[in-house]
Amino acid sequence: MVPDIEPLLEEYTPENTTIATLCSHSSMQIFHGAREAGFDTLGISVGGYPEHFDAFPKAKPDDFMIVKDYDEIVDRVGELVDENCIVVPHGSFVEYLGADKFKHLEVPTFGNRNVLEWEGDRDRERDWLTQAGIRMPDTIDDPDDIDRPTLVKYGGAKGGRGFFIATSPQEFYDNVDEDEEYVIQEYILGTRYYFHYFQSPLRSDGYDCAGGRLEMMGCDRRDETNIDEIHRLGSIGNITELKKKGIDPSFVVAGNLPLVLRESQLPKVLDMGRRAVEKGYELFDGLIGPFCLETVITDDLDFYVFEISARIVAGTNLFPKGSPYTAFMDEDVSTGRRIAQEIEHGLETGRLDEVVS
Amino acid sequence: MVPDIEPLLEEYTPENTTIATLCSHSSMQIFHGAREAGFDTLGISVGGYPEHFDAFPKAKPDDFMIVKDYDEIVDRVGELVDENCIVVPHGSFVEYLGADKFKHLEVPTFGNRNVLEWEGDRDRERDWLTQAGIRMPDTIDDPDDIDRPTLVKYGGAKGGRGFFIATSPQEFYDNVDEDEEYVIQEYILGTRYYFHYFQSPLRSDGYDCAGGRLEMMGCDRRDETNIDEIHRLGSIGNITELKKKGIDPSFVVAGNLPLVLRESQLPKVLDMGRRAVEKGYELFDGLIGPFCLETVITDDLDFYVFEISARIVAGTNLFPKGSPYTAFMDEDVSTGRRIAQEIEHGLETGRLDEVVS
Amino acid sequence: MVPDIEPLLEEYTPENTTIATLCSHSSMQIFHGAREAGFDTLGISVGGYPEHFDAFPKAKPDDFMIVKDYDEIVDRVGELVDENCIVVPHGSFVEYLGADKFKHLEVPTFGNRNVLEWEGDRDRERDWLTQAGIRMPDTIDDPDDIDRPTLVKYGGAKGGRGFFIATSPQEFYDNVDEDEEYVIQEYILGTRYYFHYFQSPLRSDGYDCAGGRLEMMGCDRRDETNIDEIHRLGSIGNITELKKKGIDPSFVVAGNLPLVLRESQLPKVLDMGRRAVEKGYELFDGLIGPFCLETVITDDLDFYVFEISARIVAGTNLFPKGSPYTAFMDEDVSTGRRIAQEIEHGLETGRLDEVVS
Repeated sequence: MVPDIEPLLEEYTPENTTIATLCSHSSMQIFHGAREAGFDTLGISVGGYPEHFDAFPKAKPDDFMIVKDYDEIVDRVGELVDENCIVVPHGSFVEYLGADKFKHLEVPTFGNRNVLEWEGDRDRERDWLTQAGIRMPDTIDDPDDIDRPTLVKYGGAKGGRGFFIATSPQEFYDNVDEDEEYVIQEYILGTRYYFHYFQSPLRSDGYDCAGGRLEMMGCDRRDETNIDEIHRLGSIGNITELKKKGIDPSFVVAGNLPLVLRESQLPKVLDMGRRAVEKGYELFDGLIGPFCLETVITDDLDFYVFEISARIVAGTNLFPKGSPYTAFMDEDVSTGRRIAQEIEHGLETGRLDEVVS
Repeated sequence: MVPDIEPLLEEYTPENTTIATLCSHSSMQIFHGAREAGFDTLGISVGGYPEHFDAFPKAKPDDFMIVKDYDEIVDRVGELVDENCIVVPHGSFVEYLGADKFKHLEVPTFGNRNVLEWEGDRDRERDWLTQAGIRMPDTIDDPDDIDRPTLVKYGGAKGGRGFFIATSPQEFYDNVDEDEEYVIQEYILGTRYYFHYFQSPLRSDGYDCAGGRLEMMGCDRRDETNIDEIHRLGSIGNITELKKKGIDPSFVVAGNLPLVLRESQLPKVLDMGRRAVEKGYELFDGLIGPFCLETVITDDLDFYVFEISARIVAGTNLFPKGSPYTAFMDEDVSTGRRIAQEIEHGLETGRLDEVVS
Repeated sequence: MVPDIEPLLEEYTPENTTIATLCSHSSMQIFHGAREAGFDTLGISVGGYPEHFDAFPKAKPDDFMIVKDYDEIVDRVGELVDENCIVVPHGSFVEYLGADKFKHLEVPTFGNRNVLEWEGDRDRERDWLTQAGIRMPDTIDDPDDIDRPTLVKYGGAKGGRGFFIATSPQEFYDNVDEDEEYVIQEYILGTRYYFHYFQSPLRSDGYDCAGGRLEMMGCDRRDETNIDEIHRLGSIGNITELKKKGIDPSFVVAGNLPLVLRESQLPKVLDMGRRAVEKGYELFDGLIGPFCLETVITDDLDFYVFEISARIVAGTNLFPKGSPYTAFMDEDVSTGRRIAQEIEHGLETGRLDEVVS
């Protein structure tokens, strides 16, 4: 169970609230946005002072809580409450602390922590999205059934390392690391678009969604090493032949590239976002704030969602000054700033409890 | 013949003019730019209210004309005139309404509609550009003559679907869909750059072109599904082998990526633009407003133009707040805004007739 | 020996100083930044008036010095001194004039010209960077030792043309042009990130480096023709087979794409920059102003630097209005503007001699 943080919120005012997060992933944008909105900021840093913030003064938090390891964050959570912190989660925060520990942190966090039980479990994630009417790549249970391109993904902390594309059972068996837990996912042919959304329960003057409004903050493509440049080697063999030569394709995220989508497809993108949010309200009482649908668009202009991230994604780091999409919104801001705005709005209207958990 | 819209223009003033376009392609940018310039805006929507505009309030037109199909636009063109509309064409508008119907719409449109007869016919397009001294890829008439990489393109509404690269007659015959009309175009090896220009007949204080000035608004690369990510599969066969495995390369535009060009090549790019415009004045009395040269740049730094778009292209959607090139111009604006400026300038100086047809 | 320009500096004041550079590469950004900072600007143009500047009025220098060839720049250097010019070098300037002539130009130049002796010599460049603790790809002396992917690079003015990837001695011998001088460099598998830094000796309120501060201005990826799109041909052979078909992979820079890096890797990037600068101070008394580390990031998230550019790089042309990184700095400006700021700061504090040579 997520802790009951409502009693804590009584102390939080627009003047004394601090925005806190772990110093990584998209934290510069989160701190920058919070500062612009007038909040105090606190950076949680593991293992020492994160000196690189000296190079980015407008993204540098006012204070740091330096811990020796992730567990110490749990131990010192009281300090965060004393500072009236609202913790903004991001992918690294949840992954390195552990979803379970994050879920139980006794401090207000931005968004709905119940989503973690659905997002962190591949089967429940699939239930959520497919029940929402969102198309996903198939999962293939038996490697002998591989009859088209598939992506073999490992679980755990490997983060894309060693993932490979198998187009036949043979290629699967030649290359799989049997010591790891794996899933075999249909590899949809197309180009990848990662859409950044923001669901605001506090505003209803826009694209109607679950009683609030859904916003589209931007779009990027993840740049993965080494798969996104391995083609420069030329055509020198299939996956098995490459591995024999010591060349190991991998899918480790190194950064992000900006993109805009063909405008005619935006209605589908907003509709998918709304479906994910509204089903989320049904299943676990709400998907709140930033989230991302990670999609492939085929040459039939069909979208397949291969993953959902239920919080700010690093692709938003492309747009600290707003994106080609926020240019058309009421305020042309980064996702970090948008989070701060929503918190501010919650504080000012006495509805903070609707956007934190 | 393009209709005579000059009598209609007498009613148009800076105060009562409305900018209209079809809700798609680059319409958000067109509406946004028109609103910023102070114009009323009208969105033509086929099949219902385009709800996604609710997510982009600054790009949402003041009014909508909702039609059940494209023909209804023709029937209701009088309403557009009543609202003193200037219709801004874009690729989807012209394609879905039909170039011929667009040409005969009895309402002022931005730019010169005569260009459609030259742009819409591959042979005349080639005459126009090659007579202007612009290098184009060769066309290969007989598939048996394929002796280097070629792109096999289908006509009609397939929009890139099923296009394929053939490097030999065998590959052509193995993969061509004989039921479709096709052209075989030399596939120039290089990287693609799509240059966004704006020809202003109303201003002469800049890069001199046909008595007006030529501007460079930006540059992008189209992102095509699935060809632009199919390399992630690894080297698993030539086109024939891929098709046998059920893997169909395709060239369907899904979006756009921003780029800047090596600065030393800009003189060539502006020169190509000028050649296209000046030859256009010779052949059909003017290329006006936004247009795009779709190029490949080889490793000899030679440019080949494989297509011209004689109106705003979707790649400009990357730059609603201006591009790395407009940053250096007198006003750092989007192409949508630039169109509105030119209309405004025409209205204010009594020269509107020079930029609409 | 670099000429002694200190006596010349006595005449330079904030009011009378002119920023000059060769009209190419990143000159629009340099002129634009200088104008914004209030400096006069002078463009050196070889072979005639660079008409394309008419399209970019805010980047157009106040005056031009038009020369018939590069040698004339040397002859007319006195005119540059008469105008109190500070010459800003960029890659084309140094390459086309010749590093040796650039080094001896009797006019103040931005940055430390002593770096040219280290940057222009592959062995010294390697000494510099490896002594700084920066990882570089191996060099392979004997083609028979090729046992993994390598990039075969030619020297001289070919600029990427004909470079090729060889994965075996056979592929090397089949494809090498023995008439050219070549180096065989280990080809690190990963994705390329080009980091734009700025070392300010005049400011110490930031990321501490060599007594000054190190800034990170942005990040791009070079777009190289034709290697970056050759994959669209499909898998039709290794390098030897491609060349037999008349298809020649090449690595000629055509432009640049914007990127952001995974935030967790920024500490490494800043650390690498600092190492390069601090070792530069040790070896040749300073690396000052803009520079670039050209890196590959592997799937272990290790960085390999394959080149250093000790001046402004063309990738910064993506960011005339600032980058996703400068958004977090005290001033959100282009590298061109940042150069002008540093000169201005030097002039105002009497420390100009610390940033020019």
